[in-house]
Amino acid sequence: MVNMTVIHVGNIKDRFFADAVAEYEKRISGFCRIKSIEIKEKRPPESPSDAQISQLLDQEGEKILLSLPRDCYKIALCVEGKKMSSEKFADVLQQLPHKGFSEAVFIIGSSYGLSPKVKEKCDLRLSVSDMTFPHRLMRVILAEQIYRACTICAGTEYHK
Amino acid sequence: MVNMTVIHVGNIKDRFFADAVAEYEKRISGFCRIKSIEIKEKRPPESPSDAQISQLLDQEGEKILLSLPRDCYKIALCVEGKKMSSEKFADVLQQLPHKGFSEAVFIIGSSYGLSPKVKEKCDLRLSVSDMTFPHRLMRVILAEQIYRACTICAGTEYHK
Repeated sequence: MVNMTVIHVGNIKDRFFADAVAEYEKRISGFCRIKSIEIKEKRPPESPSDAQISQLLDQEGEKILLSLPRDCYKIALCVEGKKMSSEKFADVLQQLPHKGFSEAVFIIGSSYGLSPKVKEKCDLRLSVSDMTFPHRLMRVILAEQIYRACTICAGTEYHK
Repeated sequence: MVNMTVIHVGNIKDRFFADAVAEYEKRISGFCRIKSIEIKEKRPPESPSDAQISQLLDQEGEKILLSLPRDCYKIALCVEGKKMSSEKFADVLQQLPHKGFSEAVFIIGSSYGLSPKVKEKCDLRLSVSDMTFPHRLMRVILAEQIYRACTICAGTEYHK
């Protein structure tokens, strides 16, 4: 399995979500190297205008683009992205070495999402659901899906 | 907001998922009554056949059907169900009193899913994602979406 990096905007305040991510990352580390990069979340003013949100996303977006490893396969998590089953997701990751990639980078935005510039730079826009999740729950879901993909590709049992 | 019941097969072993569900249920209780009913998970034999899985689901299904409150709106969580945004989901719940329902019941199966009989009995089959999640993570996602729906319907701020 390729190495993984999760770039996320903002940290996880809730202990239970942080513990869940840590547990799945521990399991993933049996299959590949996984690391995460935190981009500091910009505090928006109260009741921000569309222009203020757009500016905030651009600022966060610049930092995200600067933190991207070179030659990685970039996956943006966004509601309007492509939907796929866990098996298809595992297949996408498994095919990366054949496409010349040794690393997959996942990008999770803040509660306002991701800037268009970041989405354009990505090789894949992935949608988990039509529903909106808080980004800290999204990190748990992503970590669980990466772990699941590792077990699917390795043909090993999913540890419940 | 109508009252809510979550019927789930099996319990949550992981402390972090149990804590996450408890936190969202606490928040939901500010809007409506929420309770959960646990159906004991049947242990399948090792490498179960399709017939054995089907029998197991039927047995769990009978218990689920017996535990259903009367005159409730029944929602089965299943991957092949209907997809919707968080706003649409909130709208479905908000419309229930106008359809004569004062309670919504959500049913989450075990890792083998739900029996066809249970799905047929439901008013709505709801799919959160094309991806497969462990049922304990599904409980967290559902609790978060119910809380989100409560804030959408009440027009109050989502507490991050």
